[in-house]
Amino acid sequence: MNAPAQAGTRRGSLLIIGGGEDREDDMQILERFIALCGGPDKRIVVLTAATRVPERVWSIYDAAFGAMNVDKRKPVHVASRLDADDAATAADVAQADGIFMTGGDQKRLLALIGGTKLDEALHAALARGACIAGTSAGASAMSAHMLADGKADLHPEKGAVSLGAGIGFVQRVVIDQHFSQRQRLARLLTVVAQNPYLLGVGIDEDTALLIEAGGGIEILGAGAVTVIDGRHMVSNVADIRNRKVPEMVDVRLHLLPSGSRYGGPCDTATPDALSDFLKIITNIA
Amino acid sequence: MNAPAQAGTRRGSLLIIGGGEDREDDMQILERFIALCGGPDKRIVVLTAATRVPERVWSIYDAAFGAMNVDKRKPVHVASRLDADDAATAADVAQADGIFMTGGDQKRLLALIGGTKLDEALHAALARGACIAGTSAGASAMSAHMLADGKADLHPEKGAVSLGAGIGFVQRVVIDQHFSQRQRLARLLTVVAQNPYLLGVGIDEDTALLIEAGGGIEILGAGAVTVIDGRHMVSNVADIRNRKVPEMVDVRLHLLPSGSRYGGPCDTATPDALSDFLKIITNIA
Repeated sequence: MNAPAQAGTRRGSLLIIGGGEDREDDMQILERFIALCGGPDKRIVVLTAATRVPERVWSIYDAAFGAMNVDKRKPVHVASRLDADDAATAADVAQADGIFMTGGDQKRLLALIGGTKLDEALHAALARGACIAGTSAGASAMSAHMLADGKADLHPEKGAVSLGAGIGFVQRVVIDQHFSQRQRLARLLTVVAQNPYLLGVGIDEDTALLIEAGGGIEILGAGAVTVIDGRHMVSNVADIRNRKVPEMVDVRLHLLPSGSRYGGPCDTATPDALSDFLKIITNIA
Repeated sequence: MNAPAQAGTRRGSLLIIGGGEDREDDMQILERFIALCGGPDKRIVVLTAATRVPERVWSIYDAAFGAMNVDKRKPVHVASRLDADDAATAADVAQADGIFMTGGDQKRLLALIGGTKLDEALHAALARGACIAGTSAGASAMSAHMLADGKADLHPEKGAVSLGAGIGFVQRVVIDQHFSQRQRLARLLTVVAQNPYLLGVGIDEDTALLIEAGGGIEILGAGAVTVIDGRHMVSNVADIRNRKVPEMVDVRLHLLPSGSRYGGPCDTATPDALSDFLKIITNIA
């Protein structure tokens, strides 16, 4: 499930969206999603398993994709793990050109689909060249180590944030969304403080991190992507009590605004300090 | 005015407070200020030049210091530069054991006192061993490059923040206050993006950064101090238009919670990555 793509294998793309993407006006991110899927004549499924109000959420994307002339669009509702293990549903997903995972609760999404045929179908679709998008909870669900729950108001707090096992398209990162708008830096620092193996990736609302089939990345939309790298960090987090604020020295922070592109054949050279992030984030499967 | 302290010179301490320090209940920071001045029998002046409501602000500190049995307490109100050049006022300040600079507007404070006898008196007091505290605007005023004005909502924005010339007790840093509470990371990143020579120091409410006479530092109070170091940064800020969000790669961030101490004789070794900050921030005059 988590093996890196083989050289020469045709592989799709991931569009990791920070929530709140525009679904009515210019719909820049959704338009890009359709283009990455191959155009409006392609088959798009909308996976609503993260949300407790699947019909309502589907109706929003139904209208948005309809307005973009995507005829072959349908929802994949998952009310139980039985649904997620249904062979016909899994086949639909495996054969789709684009899969859009909605917002809601990432713990719900993974509890329903984790380890099922639908889970395998998602990876199969990516390996076939599909574009897989996830927004809000759907974005956090995309990594192996998933930001599951918790809040940190003004400062990181030991023990305040919990991780889960995500779908695992990307390794070695933890993804948060609605990042600037919901002031989530403290939350991301909390995860990185206790799990410095993981790079923290915070995606703003109406903003997306695109991991391209060819191996480059792009930030698109209204906001920015913030990367937190604690691998060089000195910290007392191992010694303090729960709920205390850790000392965190030498955290590396990268702010990547919309329009930034790295690693593609026509892009300017990636700054050295970003090259590890690029290598990690583009290693998708 | 800005020469570093000579070896063997008796020198005072700086207490840089992020605003909103408790003035009624446990008053931890104010109690520490009094202790740093030598105790409640010492002479304390409260410099209100930053505020447009000096009597109101004085009454708050009058009550607070009164409750702590500081008998020799008085305000220094400055309505004009003439007041700031008054010899008797300057002598009062130069001879004080403690000087407390209130909040308000740091541009107002410096416009009134910058370059006057009162300005010289502040440096003379520090050289004599006084403790000089500044809160909110009074804190930002303490560095040579002063954060004067501007806002950056969610992201750093080129050109959004302006600098001024502060009192200059500390070089090579820019100080912001009410840091976490008013979500000022974007503002501090803006300054550092355009002025990577300066280390950004963000101090939370009811929190203080103490620069001790002996050369160590301590963070006290309820919150934390955030240091932003852009010296290794790769950025496109020189090439983008005003109001655009800069790319900022490899910013170093240090989170120093209350209770942290560095550089004193009994303190554990300073992490290497913090040693430049320690050297810079303790070089006071």
